[in-house]
Amino acid sequence: MKLNIAVLPGDGIGPEVTAQAVKVLKAIAMEFNHIFTFKKALVGASAINKTGNPLPEETINICKKADAVLFGAIGDTKYDNDPNAKIRPEQGLLGIRKELGLYTNIRPVIAYEDLLNKSSLKVKQIKDTNILIYRELTGGIYFGERHLSEDGNTATDTCRYSRFEIERIAHLAFKAAQSRKRKLTLVDKANVLESSRLWRRVVQEIAPQYPNVRLNYMYIDNAAMELIINPRQFDVILTENMFGDILSEEASVIVGSIGVLASASIGDKHAMFEPIHGAYTKAANKGIANPIASILSAGMLLDYFGLYDEAALVREGVDKSLKLHITTPDLNTKYDNISTTKVGDFIEDFIQNPEETNLN
Amino acid sequence: MKLNIAVLPGDGIGPEVTAQAVKVLKAIAMEFNHIFTFKKALVGASAINKTGNPLPEETINICKKADAVLFGAIGDTKYDNDPNAKIRPEQGLLGIRKELGLYTNIRPVIAYEDLLNKSSLKVKQIKDTNILIYRELTGGIYFGERHLSEDGNTATDTCRYSRFEIERIAHLAFKAAQSRKRKLTLVDKANVLESSRLWRRVVQEIAPQYPNVRLNYMYIDNAAMELIINPRQFDVILTENMFGDILSEEASVIVGSIGVLASASIGDKHAMFEPIHGAYTKAANKGIANPIASILSAGMLLDYFGLYDEAALVREGVDKSLKLHITTPDLNTKYDNISTTKVGDFIEDFIQNPEETNLN
Ligand SMILES: CC(C)[C@H](C(=O)O)[C@@H](O)C(=O)O
Ligand SMILES: CC(C)[C@H](C(=O)O)[C@@H](O)C(=O)O
Repeated sequence: MKLNIAVLPGDGIGPEVTAQAVKVLKAIAMEFNHIFTFKKALVGASAINKTGNPLPEETINICKKADAVLFGAIGDTKYDNDPNAKIRPEQGLLGIRKELGLYTNIRPVIAYEDLLNKSSLKVKQIKDTNILIYRELTGGIYFGERHLSEDGNTATDTCRYSRFEIERIAHLAFKAAQSRKRKLTLVDKANVLESSRLWRRVVQEIAPQYPNVRLNYMYIDNAAMELIINPRQFDVILTENMFGDILSEEASVIVGSIGVLASASIGDKHAMFEPIHGAYTKAANKGIANPIASILSAGMLLDYFGLYDEAALVREGVDKSLKLHITTPDLNTKYDNISTTKVGDFIEDFIQNPEETNLN
Repeated sequence: MKLNIAVLPGDGIGPEVTAQAVKVLKAIAMEFNHIFTFKKALVGASAINKTGNPLPEETINICKKADAVLFGAIGDTKYDNDPNAKIRPEQGLLGIRKELGLYTNIRPVIAYEDLLNKSSLKVKQIKDTNILIYRELTGGIYFGERHLSEDGNTATDTCRYSRFEIERIAHLAFKAAQSRKRKLTLVDKANVLESSRLWRRVVQEIAPQYPNVRLNYMYIDNAAMELIINPRQFDVILTENMFGDILSEEASVIVGSIGVLASASIGDKHAMFEPIHGAYTKAANKGIANPIASILSAGMLLDYFGLYDEAALVREGVDKSLKLHITTPDLNTKYDNISTTKVGDFIEDFIQNPEETNLN
């Protein structure tokens, strides 16, 4: 298969971890006789620094022409601490999601055997957890009108949802549930928000088309608790943009490190693959950034194009690295100084020699 | 001291748990020679059933005339599953918060020694956690305009904040931090929301008035993770309405049961005290509802009126009940069948005879 992949490394640890994912994809291409080409583009704070724009026109064009986008991370503490900044790195990420119409963000939350001890939660609590979060990604309060009054004393954000925005992601979530444990949980705040009531109404209407899927509802406050006290109750979670942002980052505590959570952002024409972690400027260029989330995002990219054996091999490589403690310091209690690159190299080696790769 | 207390038991387990809190307050009045009078009023689904209105005029009047309000819980699955309901129990709770101007909701999150094992989190993770959440309670997306389009296909909610709404609660939160570990964490989503940027700006401006308080910022998604992986980093958390709702229910996992989390809702003229848990209709009238959250809310009421010894005695009673496993089934692994009433009776006894109360 021929694939043109746009690579947007972004800020902070973005470039380091993305480099490992690219390395892994190149190894896959080699082993399976695919032709993957990579084209880099600017986004986020690094794009602001070079062009004044967090999402340059050229980046949009490169992404639109590509078969898929591999995204690193964006963000910079400089902007975080300046509530008056008009231009912000996040506009790059939100802009690309919108431009490419990536309305469905899929975030798997899997309690890996080899990481069970890393979690803040008790092992019996999380064992066998396997959740797929479907987060709406191009609507809601992220993309509604915003307003700051002339005198700067009143600020407004708008959360808007339309039926079709809910329907399209709901169908995908129901279908995902059908191929799993056939349970779908809609998370909202329908006891307060009009938009949540629309979500509940639309999902209720669609449900009869998926008679073998059990549908239940949960308020976001309650879900934030249930996710910790009983994570195994969940199969597929469907939710709006902001609640999905919160729940999925919270869910990282089940897995043991946010450094291993991957995601796929899917639209009707385009697809982008990105870790759920941020830019962690403080950790940048130290070789300590965990590349697993980015590598697993590359795995989701392969799955997306039907390259299931290839994706499985990437995941096996990751599993093996976890089992053998070839991991960055956030996860490693056995070896010191296993760097970002070293983890990438190990998984690359594994792909080239699945039988032989071992602890050397 | 003379106190007129309005009692709004509400729905589900609300009446049962509130009855225990009233029992405890009566014991306190007796022992300390106070005169507490109690006046009941309707709210929530039970008010809808009797009057068609989740917040009858009479209830508002009773609350406004009272020195304080003791609130139970509201909600009913009937309404939860009906996104088309125009009248909802929650309007009773939100209405009373607004009518009484209760803009500050204070939610303590304390890892009780005797409950450490009950938590889903590892003991070393949560030990010594003591957080005070300051949640804004009468603004934001809870109270902005809502709109459903004519055709029912587009729904809108508005999140609005004004400078004075942020200032008044921020000052209270800074002051609370001054009398504690002097750390204040503002939780928002300033990388996306205009209203969050206003929060950040206003809090930044106020900060110099509290030079001995360390102020830091955290995005809500990140906070939802940090609350679990490193809860001890927090002292006072300040946040807007919706984020506070989510974070505080999530924080219950630290304590081990949502059944022990109390809260105070404070305004310039009125104050209300309520458990953070909901109505749990399923558990109603079975004698299994945990009354501790309601009893600790009564304790916060006593504190509010400067009755510190009285409040301390209530908390001692609660501690003792936990230590001796005089707790409802949600917490109890030692004894079966300790009912809601039995827990209330035990704490009442303790207040009457702090030296003698024991396991009989
Ligand atoms: C960086 C930020 C705008 C973004 C979001 O909130 O969507 C991030 O937290 C994420 O989850 O991808
Ligand atoms: C019942 C509901 C409207 C309420 C809220 O969201 O404020 C509850 O969850 C709470 O936290 O007091």
